[in-house]
Amino acid sequence: MEKSKVLIIGGTGYLGKRLVKASLAEGHETYILHRAEIGVDIDKVQMLLSFKEQGAHLVSGSFTDHQSLVKAIKLVDVVICAISGVHIRSHQILLQLKLIDAIKDAGNVKRFLPSEFGTDPARMENALEPGRVTFDDKMIVRKAIEDAQIPFTYISANCFAGYFLGGLCQPGKILPSRDSVVLLGDGNKKAIYVEEDDIAMYTIKTIDDPRTLNKTVYLRPPKNILSQREVVEIWEKLIGKELQKSSIPKEQLLASLKGHQLGGLGSRSLTALTTGAVALVTSANGPITEAVNSGLEYAEQVGLIHYYHVCYEGCLTDFEIGNDAVEASELYPEIKYTTVEGYMKRYL
Amino acid sequence: MEKSKVLIIGGTGYLGKRLVKASLAEGHETYILHRAEIGVDIDKVQMLLSFKEQGAHLVSGSFTDHQSLVKAIKLVDVVICAISGVHIRSHQILLQLKLIDAIKDAGNVKRFLPSEFGTDPARMENALEPGRVTFDDKMIVRKAIEDAQIPFTYISANCFAGYFLGGLCQPGKILPSRDSVVLLGDGNKKAIYVEEDDIAMYTIKTIDDPRTLNKTVYLRPPKNILSQREVVEIWEKLIGKELQKSSIPKEQLLASLKGHQLGGLGSRSLTALTTGAVALVTSANGPITEAVNSGLEYAEQVGLIHYYHVCYEGCLTDFEIGNDAVEASELYPEIKYTTVEGYMKRYL
Repeated sequence: MEKSKVLIIGGTGYLGKRLVKASLAEGHETYILHRAEIGVDIDKVQMLLSFKEQGAHLVSGSFTDHQSLVKAIKLVDVVICAISGVHIRSHQILLQLKLIDAIKDAGNVKRFLPSEFGTDPARMENALEPGRVTFDDKMIVRKAIEDAQIPFTYISANCFAGYFLGGLCQPGKILPSRDSVVLLGDGNKKAIYVEEDDIAMYTIKTIDDPRTLNKTVYLRPPKNILSQREVVEIWEKLIGKELQKSSIPKEQLLASLKGHQLGGLGSRSLTALTTGAVALVTSANGPITEAVNSGLEYAEQVGLIHYYHVCYEGCLTDFEIGNDAVEASELYPEIKYTTVEGYMKRYL
Repeated sequence: MEKSKVLIIGGTGYLGKRLVKASLAEGHETYILHRAEIGVDIDKVQMLLSFKEQGAHLVSGSFTDHQSLVKAIKLVDVVICAISGVHIRSHQILLQLKLIDAIKDAGNVKRFLPSEFGTDPARMENALEPGRVTFDDKMIVRKAIEDAQIPFTYISANCFAGYFLGGLCQPGKILPSRDSVVLLGDGNKKAIYVEEDDIAMYTIKTIDDPRTLNKTVYLRPPKNILSQREVVEIWEKLIGKELQKSSIPKEQLLASLKGHQLGGLGSRSLTALTTGAVALVTSANGPITEAVNSGLEYAEQVGLIHYYHVCYEGCLTDFEIGNDAVEASELYPEIKYTTVEGYMKRYL
């Protein structure tokens, strides 16, 4: 079977750059949309040039220029959009509606993979404000895709290892402490962690696979389905030391969000939240630190709600995969995915 | 001779990441300051981790914590600071005064290379506002270094290839057009272009070299001393096509800056300036476009003044190297530097 030609949008982003590498490694003729918006961001421009050196094609285009998108799309068979939907970076999910218009007009696309790569939004209809915007927007995009009868694959990649494992599942942290950790609730809900290069490789594997046509593909590497406590244990074993543990009860976390909803916008970081919780737990008679009640910035609130659903509610693992979906590590056993233990070694 | 141990500050930046690679490649025990300010910038954190994998040591520290700096400095012999001084990225030059205090306290540093890497500030005492702030601040840092009798080397790296060659010497552009170019004045003043990896390698070569102690080291690869017109000709030869040429007279460029100094702050980009100039030249009877007179943002103004001194005044090449300075390509002929022609090929 001939390999599809691929257009990647957002090819200099956190996941996008990995998708480009995986697509090239798998032998796909790979195109990257070069958006004028990149401006004089020299690091991104030089990344594009380095991809060109590795064999990718750069194609100019802009979301503000419909014809440029149509023209770029006509060069390929498959479109993968990796535009950011993470608020602490940027939230651009609905820009994809313009892309869908262009895919409709172009009429040649065999498969479209919109920017998903996280929690399955179809299962998050009861998600809390303000975090639900991520899921709501992704569902709007899905509806547009399906209304236009564009062949699709939705990648549900669960937790990015760099964020979740790096921070021992603590929001606002991406490096593991050798001293202490704040557990979210009892720390026993299972989540699923996937190394970002693996996410990219699984994603590329799906694009020419008839088994993934018009399906959701869940990434559930079996060894990586672990609770926060289990992740912490792996780290403790690696460093040969037990961490001091405290916990944020669910009610406290939600209260910190309420503060915001009542207008208590602050510039506190999530780090302050977890630090505050430590202070709370380690000095039980002291005042609840300001940090946990003063409200967080909007982007951080959104992120915190996602941690809430994953770590307190276990939303990634509280269901069986149905008939409208498939699981990636079963489909592609040839991918030797990175285990949590293997991943954590980089922090030693 | 034993190789010095090196501490690099700003090791995830545009030049800093290249300094880390060059230092490792040259076999120096390499330390990188890991600043808490990096926060949840996962791309930078992962770059640090990748440097660690390549053999560098990460050492925690912050400019707001004097003792942390002293402790980091005591681990090494040489300190190289690559903190940004480019306004369109960030301008942090004076933060180095805190570093100098720490170097004084530590008392063990054999060589300090402050963040210079551009035009020699000692020659820019008549530079125009607002661009002169870069040179003034670097001179403040130099004075602090010399007052404290810290052994130093100042690297005058002239024009970064990525910015200057990428944009055919046009401010606000970092990719060469295949259609047109705006010449700054007559386009005949010579400047000097150095590939960023070469800058890093020359820099690392100097740190254990007695010939560069307490000297300014100019980077003047002989084949790379060219005017804007000569750079454009090289590009034209590579693409087999002549570009349409227009020009911004000196007075017009300076007028666009005056607009700002009279309070005309705008959000126009430098691209608009050069685009505006094209419009001006190609439709001689039309109105002078708003772009060139509406004023530029401060950071862009600073950059534009640097282009002014380089491209209209020829400040990089209007002097002979004196006795207090040395030239890098003479000192290190073993470095096969990237020529302008070799560099431009990446844009084909």
